[in-house]
Amino acid sequence: MSKGKVLLVLYEGGKHAQEQEKLLGCIENELGVRKFIEEQGYELVATTDKDPEPTSTVDKELKDAEIVITTPFFPAYISRNRIAEAPNLKLCITAGVGSDHVDLEAANERKITVTEVTGSNVVSVAEHVLATILVLIRNYNGGHQQAIDGEWDIAGVAKNVYDLEDKVISTVGAGRIGYRVLERLVAFNPKKLLYYDYQELPTEAVNRLNAASELFNGRGNIVQRVEKMEDMLAQSDVVTINCPLHKDSKGLFNKQLISHMKNGAYLVNTARGAICVAEDVAEAVRSGKLAGYGGDVWNKQPAPKNHPWRSMDNKDHVGNAMTVHISGTSLDAQKRYAQGVKNILNSYFSKKFDYRPQDVIVQNGTYATRAYGQEKKSL
Amino acid sequence: MSKGKVLLVLYEGGKHAQEQEKLLGCIENELGVRKFIEEQGYELVATTDKDPEPTSTVDKELKDAEIVITTPFFPAYISRNRIAEAPNLKLCITAGVGSDHVDLEAANERKITVTEVTGSNVVSVAEHVLATILVLIRNYNGGHQQAIDGEWDIAGVAKNVYDLEDKVISTVGAGRIGYRVLERLVAFNPKKLLYYDYQELPTEAVNRLNAASELFNGRGNIVQRVEKMEDMLAQSDVVTINCPLHKDSKGLFNKQLISHMKNGAYLVNTARGAICVAEDVAEAVRSGKLAGYGGDVWNKQPAPKNHPWRSMDNKDHVGNAMTVHISGTSLDAQKRYAQGVKNILNSYFSKKFDYRPQDVIVQNGTYATRAYGQEKKSL
Repeated sequence: MSKGKVLLVLYEGGKHAQEQEKLLGCIENELGVRKFIEEQGYELVATTDKDPEPTSTVDKELKDAEIVITTPFFPAYISRNRIAEAPNLKLCITAGVGSDHVDLEAANERKITVTEVTGSNVVSVAEHVLATILVLIRNYNGGHQQAIDGEWDIAGVAKNVYDLEDKVISTVGAGRIGYRVLERLVAFNPKKLLYYDYQELPTEAVNRLNAASELFNGRGNIVQRVEKMEDMLAQSDVVTINCPLHKDSKGLFNKQLISHMKNGAYLVNTARGAICVAEDVAEAVRSGKLAGYGGDVWNKQPAPKNHPWRSMDNKDHVGNAMTVHISGTSLDAQKRYAQGVKNILNSYFSKKFDYRPQDVIVQNGTYATRAYGQEKKSL
Repeated sequence: MSKGKVLLVLYEGGKHAQEQEKLLGCIENELGVRKFIEEQGYELVATTDKDPEPTSTVDKELKDAEIVITTPFFPAYISRNRIAEAPNLKLCITAGVGSDHVDLEAANERKITVTEVTGSNVVSVAEHVLATILVLIRNYNGGHQQAIDGEWDIAGVAKNVYDLEDKVISTVGAGRIGYRVLERLVAFNPKKLLYYDYQELPTEAVNRLNAASELFNGRGNIVQRVEKMEDMLAQSDVVTINCPLHKDSKGLFNKQLISHMKNGAYLVNTARGAICVAEDVAEAVRSGKLAGYGGDVWNKQPAPKNHPWRSMDNKDHVGNAMTVHISGTSLDAQKRYAQGVKNILNSYFSKKFDYRPQDVIVQNGTYATRAYGQEKKSL
């Protein structure tokens, strides 16, 4: 008899898993943790069948599971109801970063520990932010479409191509990802880098960004914190969202807030889809209020076929840089979060519970991190 | 009677010119130079009709022109034959950067001055290089296609997604554009930045890149010059081409040279299409030797509808990040090169001939710049 059950929910790899052995994060490769888990005397049940609640395999298997491992890319929602039906559940592990698909309040009430592998894919996501900004501002989609379609109408593409240089770029949230986005932007010689966050960037981080700007652009003092969201949006050519999803950020970018943005600005969101109101964003792109919107996160995942972000574009049929949720699941990131999950399991199995502090989201009935917590002032 | 004729060859803007007044570089807006030219007593003839030689409007109008202004995006080839038929021709101006569409040898024989607006779009091109690298290595195309097509197969995209971090990235050519590419790469924390060029980067430039790497990544000594092209290619995950087209770089990336690259490497070329052998590149992408190829330059422009770079992709139908030739013609760049053309015209009309030295490609029968010249050691 096993000591307990570990439930693992991952996306299907299918033929891709056979082709690419580095795809650790798919169901076929099980993060490479089966042997380790079984050697510890635990049972591993792995499934892709997460919907609908309450009739999926996840619902059935979670009932007597002690640990559940999920991902943000193909999230099994660990809802209040599911938690209520899982009396043995002690530990939720997110293979990746972002645990908003777990009902943290309900977890706290039951003193379930929720962890994620902080840092495992912050670089991957920051890179996707840069890719998306460049795709939008340089109208890559328009230029690529003509290349593929056999056309050559330079003016038709160029009329939507700008340089990133000398633009005002801002981030909502300047945590591990937001800061890395700022790092990668400095060499592009922006006019200004702005951020909005409930806490100030560490002085060391600000100094580093300013020193790099001085080196590359001969201008220090490039980074500036803005107190009021609307003030930041009003002066930004590009806005990127890099904050967690929680009750204060949910639906934050609605029609009203977007109205404060510059006409023709770009909005990039690789944080969580639900931070934006889907139809309001789509309408802003269609009307030209936003020159473009892009990112890889959706308010429901997998996104329904008729999700407005799949089909939205502007009058030039550009301005949509959406991808499916892949930024954090690069092959390099998969290696890192697979190892991180193993480390968390090891801390649990050994009964040392010596998790890396930055990996712990909630524990012993309380928020371990202020980013998700309720005592924060703003985001 | 006018003092002389200026022939201006630009791409057509059509309805785009009406929509976007910043499109200075199209025929409708004439770089904003008509009034200035006519005030100087010169006649301006502007046309889009550049092909075929020798029956186009360019052929007809060039016969008595004193100055011809062309662009790399929609190049009127100023061939030896056309020069022979244009006895009054004194000055060729490239609105942009890259004057390989002018027969420089023939220009030298006739002591025609060839100028370009150096620096006007180096930033724009460097940004396009970064965009293309990120599009390829993060498989933006695969992720975007699924988003648009209503699909959600994370593994099918992720199996071709890598981080740029910790990769070896190299540039063939470390001039104004190549250096700016290196600047923009440092914050991505590459394993190594390599370059191949006939001359060393200035010590100051190397120090700047290393200092930025020390700041961001805690590692100096990130930049390294490689003496032998094959040695550089053998260790590079991403290779970017940032050198001019001349007789030694024409056809440089053929099957033989590509065979020295790492399997699954990415090749990005925003320099000139003819530096690569089109069919050899397409075959390398199809076979998987290259994980992807991208850029915006083509060996013939406008590219024919059946150009292999339009249709090439790999077994996963990704790996093609081609766009039409737009990187250097962003709206920001158009403003800069329109002003640069006006400055060159002013130097000519005033008979001071006080061009910015960096703008002069050939003058008084000789190469003013070593990049295009013949005395160089390699590229």
